[in-house]
Amino acid sequence: MTMDGEARVLRDADLRIEGGRITAIGSAREDDDVAVRDLGGKIVLPGLVQGHIHLGQTLFRALAEERRLLAWLSERIYPLEAAHDDESAYWSGLLGAAECLLSGTTTIQDIGIGPGIEGLVEAIAESGLRALVGPCLMDSGPELPAALSKSSDEALQEAARVAAEIGRYSRLSFVLNPRFILSCSDALWDGIRSLAAEHEWPVHTHALEQKEETEEVRALKGGRDEITYFDEAGVLDLDLRLAHGVWLESQHLDALADRRVSVVHCPSSNLKLGSGLADVVAIRNHGLAVGIGCDGTPCNNDLDAFKELRLAALVQSVKHSPGALSGLEALRLATSEGARAIGLGDEIGSLEVGKAADLVVLDGERPELWAAPEADLHDVIAFGASRAAVVDVMVDGEWLVEGGVLRHLDLGAIRASSTRAWAALKQRAGLNL
Amino acid sequence: MTMDGEARVLRDADLRIEGGRITAIGSAREDDDVAVRDLGGKIVLPGLVQGHIHLGQTLFRALAEERRLLAWLSERIYPLEAAHDDESAYWSGLLGAAECLLSGTTTIQDIGIGPGIEGLVEAIAESGLRALVGPCLMDSGPELPAALSKSSDEALQEAARVAAEIGRYSRLSFVLNPRFILSCSDALWDGIRSLAAEHEWPVHTHALEQKEETEEVRALKGGRDEITYFDEAGVLDLDLRLAHGVWLESQHLDALADRRVSVVHCPSSNLKLGSGLADVVAIRNHGLAVGIGCDGTPCNNDLDAFKELRLAALVQSVKHSPGALSGLEALRLATSEGARAIGLGDEIGSLEVGKAADLVVLDGERPELWAAPEADLHDVIAFGASRAAVVDVMVDGEWLVEGGVLRHLDLGAIRASSTRAWAALKQRAGLNL
Repeated sequence: MTMDGEARVLRDADLRIEGGRITAIGSAREDDDVAVRDLGGKIVLPGLVQGHIHLGQTLFRALAEERRLLAWLSERIYPLEAAHDDESAYWSGLLGAAECLLSGTTTIQDIGIGPGIEGLVEAIAESGLRALVGPCLMDSGPELPAALSKSSDEALQEAARVAAEIGRYSRLSFVLNPRFILSCSDALWDGIRSLAAEHEWPVHTHALEQKEETEEVRALKGGRDEITYFDEAGVLDLDLRLAHGVWLESQHLDALADRRVSVVHCPSSNLKLGSGLADVVAIRNHGLAVGIGCDGTPCNNDLDAFKELRLAALVQSVKHSPGALSGLEALRLATSEGARAIGLGDEIGSLEVGKAADLVVLDGERPELWAAPEADLHDVIAFGASRAAVVDVMVDGEWLVEGGVLRHLDLGAIRASSTRAWAALKQRAGLNL
Repeated sequence: MTMDGEARVLRDADLRIEGGRITAIGSAREDDDVAVRDLGGKIVLPGLVQGHIHLGQTLFRALAEERRLLAWLSERIYPLEAAHDDESAYWSGLLGAAECLLSGTTTIQDIGIGPGIEGLVEAIAESGLRALVGPCLMDSGPELPAALSKSSDEALQEAARVAAEIGRYSRLSFVLNPRFILSCSDALWDGIRSLAAEHEWPVHTHALEQKEETEEVRALKGGRDEITYFDEAGVLDLDLRLAHGVWLESQHLDALADRRVSVVHCPSSNLKLGSGLADVVAIRNHGLAVGIGCDGTPCNNDLDAFKELRLAALVQSVKHSPGALSGLEALRLATSEGARAIGLGDEIGSLEVGKAADLVVLDGERPELWAAPEADLHDVIAFGASRAAVVDVMVDGEWLVEGGVLRHLDLGAIRASSTRAWAALKQRAGLNL
């Protein structure tokens, strides 16, 4: 399943990979000196792309249930994130990365954390995932613990420092991650705008996720909603990725239509926190690229992008009409369009000559994937596939998962270390859980 | 995870099974002559219960996309079901049953089919599933193919004949399955009421699934909606299970509250066909037991009950508020309450002494199920588990799945035979797909 412009499904096809790139597809030349892997009975897809994820929250799975966004943040997520150190962030990142890889995700855009960001970056690099990442930037907000609240200058300096570190890793690149308007001062947004313009760094933030959030933004910013504020602050002129966008209205979409702005849809999180049903159809109709993300384990509580793209299609069917977002289009959010939404559309997201060899191999012989030959394979995969079907995963030409097993990571050790790191973090957080 | 009244989670516990029944739980006596299975690192749940499923449609996966209910039925489902014979129905049933078992479902209430019902019953019996099943009864409706439309007398005679056949299988029991009001005449409902009362047979039907359906019912029945019609026809006094119930309103729920009526919620199907978001919270608040079902592969397109219970919780969170249906309660829909909804509450649905040994064993060491000890395991399982975690499945004390593999069924043969049976069915149906 190429997920290229024509969404070609090639049967009995070859895929040639050299130096981490796809060099032939369809029918490949066979040389004596080439390693051949027979994938008979398997289905090959581009690796899935998650445009919004918090691997720094993996240790907090199911620890913030039954709350709407602002209480979820202030009562649980802020104090827990504030208690991270490099050690706990490293294991949180590695545990989440392992789950992503085993579920067929090969690229993430991670919104980062404050304390522990170096540990998180190290874990993501070690996992082999392709990733955009940077520290989660915050400098204000009434309920922010001291550890999360730097001055805007300190936050910007940390961003630059982490950006330099990230430059050491070939599969990582840097993204500026201001958390959201309620935790970032005007000075911080101003500094972000300058840094982004200077270094051509993309900017990734939460926006219009929940009604109360937007109401608080209006109260704080003299009646301006997120999009108006960003427009006046020059943020809409950047390479900007908005996570959620549940409450984007048509006047917002008009303002965004000619900018370099994309939206990352997080349907499980949006249902679970009671945020609402984002209008992905309207967003796409305005020409914006839409990606998809599992958000984090305290609000999903799962990192399987197949569940997410399936839910995206289901939600648009009930919001508009059956097939308003087809199986094929849902798969696009997690592949070609999802790659475009995070600026990697030329590099990944489809199986095409010249693109990086990031792919997921599914077991096409599982009963849930049996379908008549007349069925559209995109519908079969979009609605029936899950991590259960994932057999092998490749990033940059390197097999990271083979036969459903991580080649390079010891899952038992990650689990045990995560449990130890959590116990220490909980002590530091002093929360009564 | 007992899913008993207190929802106890026992750690390092034993479960003793004798003659297909649970005879001890917590700490079991160990005899020399008892086979012991070490489930260290595993999580044991009651087998999942699906109260509404169409295994006769498994061959039609992804062949009726992007349609609302009535077009979905008339353009695809009716002509395809009409073309079934015993051979195609057998393979459809076995393929679907294999998928159910591998996903941890141990009991189903299947709404049956018309032609081929004997083949379907044989397949379900052979699969080892516990099941309620019977022919899908229809005798009217403008768009019904001849093969589906018997006279009411013929339909009732077939029901009695299949009931007698089903009596030969210990894990099967009979249910009267009138499809819905639009395909059943007054005479058929009258005959169903008589047969049900005489034999104490339960009745399972579709109701209030989609707005247009209810509008057609009103037009056909002199302004009466489904519940009013059923009330006047004496159907509400039966042991009645209503699939969907998306458009149940408070006056309906008041009328149902003191009857033997339950509802089976099918969230994936309800989203995918654009039906709506059923108000499970209100239905349960009126005292009705609610079960869960994957419906069928042309409207889901997946038979994993874990996906379904997760979606049930997500939908109520966005319809009401986060946690309106908690992880624990979502699991109840697929276990203890789901069993009650199909009249098997005393027999299955929880791990308790005296109940049948129907259970599913999950791999608790998968990364998506890692959580801090402070997390509620019900939330971890409800939102993170899927068929990917299913290791072993037992029905009636018999292991049917071990190590993720069906012990007694040859999946390769089922797949190949399903493909052949589909080709022949497609010829008979004469549909241009």
